[in-house]
Amino acid sequence: MINVTLIGTGGMIPLPERFLASCLIEYNGKSILIDCGEGTQISLHKGRLSMNKIDTILITHCHADHVAGLPGLLLTIGNQGRTEPLYIIAPRGSTKYINSLLIVCGFLPYEVSIAELHDTKPQVFEQVGLKITSIPLKHHINCLGYSLELSLKPHFQPDIAKKLNIPVKFWKSLHNGNSVEVDDNIYTPDMVLGEPRKPIKISYVTDTRPVKHIKDIVMESDLFICEGMYGEDEQLDNAKEKMHMIFSEAATIAKDAHVKELWLTHFSPSMNRPEDFIGYAKNIFPNVKIGRDLMGTTLKSN
Amino acid sequence: MINVTLIGTGGMIPLPERFLASCLIEYNGKSILIDCGEGTQISLHKGRLSMNKIDTILITHCHADHVAGLPGLLLTIGNQGRTEPLYIIAPRGSTKYINSLLIVCGFLPYEVSIAELHDTKPQVFEQVGLKITSIPLKHHINCLGYSLELSLKPHFQPDIAKKLNIPVKFWKSLHNGNSVEVDDNIYTPDMVLGEPRKPIKISYVTDTRPVKHIKDIVMESDLFICEGMYGEDEQLDNAKEKMHMIFSEAATIAKDAHVKELWLTHFSPSMNRPEDFIGYAKNIFPNVKIGRDLMGTTLKSN
Repeated sequence: MINVTLIGTGGMIPLPERFLASCLIEYNGKSILIDCGEGTQISLHKGRLSMNKIDTILITHCHADHVAGLPGLLLTIGNQGRTEPLYIIAPRGSTKYINSLLIVCGFLPYEVSIAELHDTKPQVFEQVGLKITSIPLKHHINCLGYSLELSLKPHFQPDIAKKLNIPVKFWKSLHNGNSVEVDDNIYTPDMVLGEPRKPIKISYVTDTRPVKHIKDIVMESDLFICEGMYGEDEQLDNAKEKMHMIFSEAATIAKDAHVKELWLTHFSPSMNRPEDFIGYAKNIFPNVKIGRDLMGTTLKSN
Repeated sequence: MINVTLIGTGGMIPLPERFLASCLIEYNGKSILIDCGEGTQISLHKGRLSMNKIDTILITHCHADHVAGLPGLLLTIGNQGRTEPLYIIAPRGSTKYINSLLIVCGFLPYEVSIAELHDTKPQVFEQVGLKITSIPLKHHINCLGYSLELSLKPHFQPDIAKKLNIPVKFWKSLHNGNSVEVDDNIYTPDMVLGEPRKPIKISYVTDTRPVKHIKDIVMESDLFICEGMYGEDEQLDNAKEKMHMIFSEAATIAKDAHVKELWLTHFSPSMNRPEDFIGYAKNIFPNVKIGRDLMGTTLKSN
């Protein structure tokens, strides 16, 4: 079970009713925060979302609207008494920007560990039990999207285990993928487990032009959160110049990647009512929602 | 006529209903902002206060809760098309912190000029037509308060000018402090001007223990905005340790300095309702208000 909450849905400028684009993914008592612009901690507070449970912060890129909230958030977490290390993962070249921002933090009572990822090829790693794949994007500076997956074990089939006379005490071990020996008989997991199950998958892509491999990596996401900096198709030239996407481009990726649901986010401050333009996305991919601050969902296994 | 608005009234952590302590002083079409913590631009936006009119940012000190909003604010001002330089004035040693924060700004379409002030002796300078005196404070790092004064010319006395037969066309020049010669008679300003007038004076002091010279510099302020990090007298030891003030200490300075009005600000996030503790200040200095975000006043000449 994974909780996903949009902490903010704005691009460039934090507005009183639309904080800067950021997303919290909660799993198994820990959280991953994606991006931390100015005001992220205020929105987390508004949503009564624990800051101290944040284990990892994934940074898309080091423009101010995506990272300037880091010193404040890290200090607040420090004030809450944290001692465990916190991980910041960001594209190549980010460490100097992040360290530069953190100069105003003074002493933090916990370790902040910054790791850089390739900016041109996807990397796969694991944090808080989720498999994360980075998605190299095309923006003015090195920028990454992220796909997060929770692997699901195949269902255990007790009927078959009973038929095979496997004592119940061995079921858990088999479900965990281990073979067991009972009275000189060897039982392997494939004998008692069902079909492989699709992982729960969330993908987050902001600050980019569309590039082909986004589709490949976000393929079949349960939830695809994608920037829609501008609503109307007429804004395409503007989007190209600013290295952003319009609603229809985000929807096209969603369609091509066969995702279940698309949430648009990272709206231009010039767009007062993004919902007025939802048609541009819906025409292409019907299961789309306009992101709002603190809009959330729980993704469960089937 | 000077407008003063509290942009935020919180210490340490920005809260949804209490942004970080900051103050906007508007005079003659330009503004001076004091401090710029995370979220300051959001509160300015909420209050529909122009960011582009900000000419000078006075920084009390470089703790994150007082400066981490700088990159965002400066970028937003840049997006509004500013080309004139903007001045940041801060205590000795601040430049490296501020430049370090601004690394995430990339290109700004205007010059940002940073000047450092002494941290141990007051300095007097002028910005946007106001005389500003820095107030060295006692905090964990170099920290300054600021006193801002609008000098008021003595009133011109037309009755006397008429009696002296000074033609009206010379009145303005005399009022501006120049002598004039009319038909071989020399008239000097003192002949036609009234008594010297007290300047309009606003003082702003946060993040300090009480030190004697605060009183001397804020003497007779029309409005004294002062930190009250903690309400109860019982918090004195805590305030000493954290290098802050309790309400009664702020009120004592207000009383000793014969200010007209005291506004308390920079409240600890642990204090939900500062108004519950106003008695601790009122007992000492009755004309005190608990600061609230976007509370403002207009100070006029008599």
